[in-house]
Amino acid sequence: MGNSFALRTDLYELNMMQTYVNRGLQDKKVVFDLFFRKLPFGNGYAVFVGLDSILDFVTGIRFAEDDLEYLESLGFNAKFLEVLRELRFSGNIYAMREGEIIFPNEPVLTVEAPMIEALLIETSILNIFNHETLIATKASRIKQVTGENQVIEFGARRGHGLDASLYGARATYIAGFAGTSLVEAGKRFKIPVLGTMSHAFIQSFNCEIEAFRAYSEENKDNIILLVDTYNTLRSGIPNAIKVAKELEAKGIKVKAVRLDSGDLTYLSREARKMLDNEGLNYIKIVASSDLDENVITDLKLQGAKIDIYAVGTRVITGYDQPALGGVYKLVEVLDEEERIPKIKLSDNIEKIINPGRKKVFRIVNRETGKAEADYITRYDEVLPREGKDLLLFDPISPWKKKMVKEYVAIELQKEVVKDGQRCGPSGDVAEARKLCAASLDLLWDEHKRRINPQTYFVDLSEKLWYLKKEMIERVTNGAE
Amino acid sequence: MGNSFALRTDLYELNMMQTYVNRGLQDKKVVFDLFFRKLPFGNGYAVFVGLDSILDFVTGIRFAEDDLEYLESLGFNAKFLEVLRELRFSGNIYAMREGEIIFPNEPVLTVEAPMIEALLIETSILNIFNHETLIATKASRIKQVTGENQVIEFGARRGHGLDASLYGARATYIAGFAGTSLVEAGKRFKIPVLGTMSHAFIQSFNCEIEAFRAYSEENKDNIILLVDTYNTLRSGIPNAIKVAKELEAKGIKVKAVRLDSGDLTYLSREARKMLDNEGLNYIKIVASSDLDENVITDLKLQGAKIDIYAVGTRVITGYDQPALGGVYKLVEVLDEEERIPKIKLSDNIEKIINPGRKKVFRIVNRETGKAEADYITRYDEVLPREGKDLLLFDPISPWKKKMVKEYVAIELQKEVVKDGQRCGPSGDVAEARKLCAASLDLLWDEHKRRINPQTYFVDLSEKLWYLKKEMIERVTNGAE
Repeated sequence: MGNSFALRTDLYELNMMQTYVNRGLQDKKVVFDLFFRKLPFGNGYAVFVGLDSILDFVTGIRFAEDDLEYLESLGFNAKFLEVLRELRFSGNIYAMREGEIIFPNEPVLTVEAPMIEALLIETSILNIFNHETLIATKASRIKQVTGENQVIEFGARRGHGLDASLYGARATYIAGFAGTSLVEAGKRFKIPVLGTMSHAFIQSFNCEIEAFRAYSEENKDNIILLVDTYNTLRSGIPNAIKVAKELEAKGIKVKAVRLDSGDLTYLSREARKMLDNEGLNYIKIVASSDLDENVITDLKLQGAKIDIYAVGTRVITGYDQPALGGVYKLVEVLDEEERIPKIKLSDNIEKIINPGRKKVFRIVNRETGKAEADYITRYDEVLPREGKDLLLFDPISPWKKKMVKEYVAIELQKEVVKDGQRCGPSGDVAEARKLCAASLDLLWDEHKRRINPQTYFVDLSEKLWYLKKEMIERVTNGAE
Repeated sequence: MGNSFALRTDLYELNMMQTYVNRGLQDKKVVFDLFFRKLPFGNGYAVFVGLDSILDFVTGIRFAEDDLEYLESLGFNAKFLEVLRELRFSGNIYAMREGEIIFPNEPVLTVEAPMIEALLIETSILNIFNHETLIATKASRIKQVTGENQVIEFGARRGHGLDASLYGARATYIAGFAGTSLVEAGKRFKIPVLGTMSHAFIQSFNCEIEAFRAYSEENKDNIILLVDTYNTLRSGIPNAIKVAKELEAKGIKVKAVRLDSGDLTYLSREARKMLDNEGLNYIKIVASSDLDENVITDLKLQGAKIDIYAVGTRVITGYDQPALGGVYKLVEVLDEEERIPKIKLSDNIEKIINPGRKKVFRIVNRETGKAEADYITRYDEVLPREGKDLLLFDPISPWKKKMVKEYVAIELQKEVVKDGQRCGPSGDVAEARKLCAASLDLLWDEHKRRINPQTYFVDLSEKLWYLKKEMIERVTNGAE
């Protein structure tokens, strides 16, 4: 069985590719934009993650012999299979960096390639983008409410398969989580790994305190005691206190206790009191149990005494909205060196794509240091000189205007694949994590609210807006 | 970078394992049960899928050198690393077959192994079970409402990573879907693959009808025309009719048209009329667009004329409840050849585990041919002879009793790994699909309702019930 990833694609891509090849159109170059239309979770922004996996996938595509045999069995013709046998991705890709804050309807990633290559990669690059960006965005929401408290990812057993947990852990770290329980993620991405003990461990001893002692003896640097196996306040905390005192006598400190069930507000407050009464103020309280940004907000409002949050299922599955609707749309066809912008209409004006190759800029107000809007232009446009004023208008309601004084423009897409060769980012998670934090700092707090965030503007340049308007009119006149 | 899967585990498993090794307890044998407590989606049953992936994972575990180096960097000691270097799974696994219908609180899979091995595999086998069983269960719900209509899986771009889509497609096929769009799933699991064309394909031609003609010429056996790129009823269907007539003249038949947006009830009814008026009754209508069992039920009630449903996001992510809460609990410790059942209490009686190694039987009424309940016994119990009567009682409300006349008992768990060697099922999806259909046939329709299904009973034998009761009393007396 080959290990090729070439068949990680929908059948229709291959049907269409064969049609192009049969008609001699396989070298026709096209431009596709990858973007999403609606922010998930009611959030005010999304966190782009997935580029590293996408680039690995795209630059690694090869058809193995058994892939070709299988396609032959489906009825694909010999000429087409010969094209596939030699196929490598030969195009260019322009993309934002991992960790970047992104918004609806702006091209996060742009593919410029022969039609058949652009089609072949569609399914998998959407899959990767939709997954990793979704999890990072959910994690970022959670991080917004935990504030100074650490939050760690504990969801490995609930991800959708082993790789979903692995890449999910990576996404949460980029979004600001402090670490993960998943060891492979630690090894592969250099993420801190964290972990304690399970109920089964405690049960496998004759009694709770024996289990605490055994664990502490063997894990002196990382003693976190799980206190809810039998009864948190009557057994777990008293036993933890007893063991902590025994260890203090040997110069060893218990790091934390972990609550994993029950009324976390009540239990954490009582546990805190019991620990403090014994002078064990240094022992932290870790809590887990179906936590997410909503539960954590409530726990904080109720005065729960929790130092570290462990979040599993709800982040690793993007529980309340487990799919991001990323799409991949044809925006341009290159015909004998002429660039022909393309558009697809919709009854809903907000769903009409922005035609042609484009550039995206984040427009920062030099005075406040805050981002005012993202600004999409045609590819060959020149922006007014930085430090000058820039007039923005809402592309849906163009009479709504706003002047940005002394703006600074950050171009968001970089070339990451050139002629099929990866030339871009290293995939380093620490770097992506830093970018995510810095990029979030550019946003006003109004856009970071858990509920009803202020909409961040994604505006079009006048030139792009006119092109779009003109094309809409041309198509609708033609159709009538 | 090694390709080992040994580190696909939570750190706490390794912490606990090292504790056991340091204390010379690594060979202590234990028994863990894998089960879930609550049915997802409000469904009346779940479909077990994931065994094949679990067995591949468990029997393939090896620590690569770079895994061990990484663990050393985390502070694990040399003695422990030496144990890991030689570690292979050496235990036994008993499991139900893929495709089996399963219910809460019954052991779907049972691991009997040295403690350290049983811990090491916990995270990943839960992950796989939770994912694949969730998707199969969602797919089965959808299949219940589509009835005689075909339903195909189109979600590859929305799964949580490439493997989530791959194994998700497999799960939907086992649950009764007719095929998938994902080519690799077709190749690897021998699932029918299906696909048409995209909007981008149509746009890349000068006009819709030209795209239809080009596609039809190159895909004569599988002509499904996407009709909503511009305007379904004014452009798509009329062009499809025109092309169908042209092809009829050459003896070629258009198979179907596909609707992918808009009011599917209205559009499908109008499209049906337009096609029928032209004598094209043989052209089927395929519909897609965020479908699930609820939308499909409504479409049918509204008289939509849809022949084939394509379901994507909602099945491949288990959209409305994207996590199954499978758990893995210690139920027995083997101490010098003595089997010591274990229990874990909870404030909620339904959450208290069933102690000890067990057997699970599906109790079928010989007269009706229908399953009356599942029946869990201690491992060494002998059931009354088949054909006799069997008295069942509700373990939560034991005064509720039911006599099954002339019962037949099907034992559900089989040995699938013996002394670390896989000895069980082949992983064949056709077989699992057949089992799923047959197993569903045993259930009364009342358990298959989309909303408010009748609860299927999972009962305990008298012996197991007494053991549990006795142990609960022993533990609670000890704790007070």
